[in-house]
Amino acid sequence: MKNPLIVITNDDGITAPGIQTLIEVVKKITNRIVVVAPDKPQSGMGHAITINAMIRIKKFELDGVTAYSCSGTPVDCVKVATAKIAEGKPDLIVSGINHGSNSSINVIYSGTMSAAMEGSIEGIPSIGFSLNDTRIDASFEASKKYVEQIINYALENHLEGNCCLNVNFPAVNEDLIQGIKVCRQANAMWEEDFQERHDPAGNPYYWLTGKFVNHEEEATDTDEWALKNNYVSVVPVQYDVTAYPVLEQIKQLEND
Amino acid sequence: MKNPLIVITNDDGITAPGIQTLIEVVKKITNRIVVVAPDKPQSGMGHAITINAMIRIKKFELDGVTAYSCSGTPVDCVKVATAKIAEGKPDLIVSGINHGSNSSINVIYSGTMSAAMEGSIEGIPSIGFSLNDTRIDASFEASKKYVEQIINYALENHLEGNCCLNVNFPAVNEDLIQGIKVCRQANAMWEEDFQERHDPAGNPYYWLTGKFVNHEEEATDTDEWALKNNYVSVVPVQYDVTAYPVLEQIKQLEND
Repeated sequence: MKNPLIVITNDDGITAPGIQTLIEVVKKITNRIVVVAPDKPQSGMGHAITINAMIRIKKFELDGVTAYSCSGTPVDCVKVATAKIAEGKPDLIVSGINHGSNSSINVIYSGTMSAAMEGSIEGIPSIGFSLNDTRIDASFEASKKYVEQIINYALENHLEGNCCLNVNFPAVNEDLIQGIKVCRQANAMWEEDFQERHDPAGNPYYWLTGKFVNHEEEATDTDEWALKNNYVSVVPVQYDVTAYPVLEQIKQLEND
Repeated sequence: MKNPLIVITNDDGITAPGIQTLIEVVKKITNRIVVVAPDKPQSGMGHAITINAMIRIKKFELDGVTAYSCSGTPVDCVKVATAKIAEGKPDLIVSGINHGSNSSINVIYSGTMSAAMEGSIEGIPSIGFSLNDTRIDASFEASKKYVEQIINYALENHLEGNCCLNVNFPAVNEDLIQGIKVCRQANAMWEEDFQERHDPAGNPYYWLTGKFVNHEEEATDTDEWALKNNYVSVVPVQYDVTAYPVLEQIKQLEND
């Protein structure tokens, strides 16, 4: 595809280094770029949208590209980009590169991936990119060539069934990366814990923390396994969450 | 199951009439009830969690039951209920009754359904209930007997594959309800629009609005069809969002 229209967003906020890496790579592919990203960190926002508050949008320059910061969530950013800012239907939406993995169950909590899913709901090929390193000064060097390869793949190939891609990079140097692995979402969860603290007046408050638990450590076809073994994991993600295998089982409810 | 431990939450906030209806029905089934709900409306919060801010929890009485209001999202409420408040693992988590339908694509944006999904991630049978009427004074009368029936079904039957149930009620009198229909999520979307306004200083701001578009009006096996035809729709929902049919198609990425 020649000079595609590409929307770039993220959930770490418009000043995060990860989105700058994404802009740098996309500039090699096209000059039709729309950047709309949150004006503050929006990690863990899932598929939240702003319906009880107004949204502010601010235009400025970012790495030589016209960009817009948005007071809303990552999903709001995609809606703003497609409904208000992009001239015509975008050919691709890319989100990230997230500071931190969005493999396995994290896909559900992730603003980065919810932005990509929103793109697919609107019928636009979409990709979320994440690096398995939460540090603000994480190195995105090794991911660049894979970001370019996967974007070009998505532009050239029609993805079946309104899905988007969840791409996660291991936090290792390029020479250690074993290649790309297409895989499924591992069955995992966060075992939460709440740290209790007290404010100066003595009233309690809580911080959410948690321990990651992979229910299927042994499986070799999951994104968790791929990342742990230094592969770039690619999971196709759909927004139809119907549990089809269960439909028959609960049919009995109709006759109770 | 005798005297099960049931967690009740919602996304409209702890003072919404919908959650009071849910408490009323659950009291007929058990006296082991844990109510934890947002201290303010949290509609459209999707699967958001609070990781960049603290959480406050406040205990009080609601309809004769000890309840907790939580400053976080609906998903936070489930995490607080299971990790901090419930004594032992809950037998069931119920969320709602939401003021407004969560059928089809709304399941993705809905705090009500994300709370139920969080329960299933934690391995607890969970149900989200919603009424197709957004008014604060909507009547929940006709839904009561179905809420009780479906809760009893979930307590007696093990749901396969870590799924939760998305239950939606048509906004009609009980004599018009045609029964329960087990169905799949309709393929639909919101065509968004942003209303532009100006603050007193002349700066623009935006309100998200949208038009609901059902891509498969003709299909008779969807939740949209069921609701429109005055059935109670029940969709089993899973948190594994892998697009399995697409795995083979994109395998080619591994060899590019």
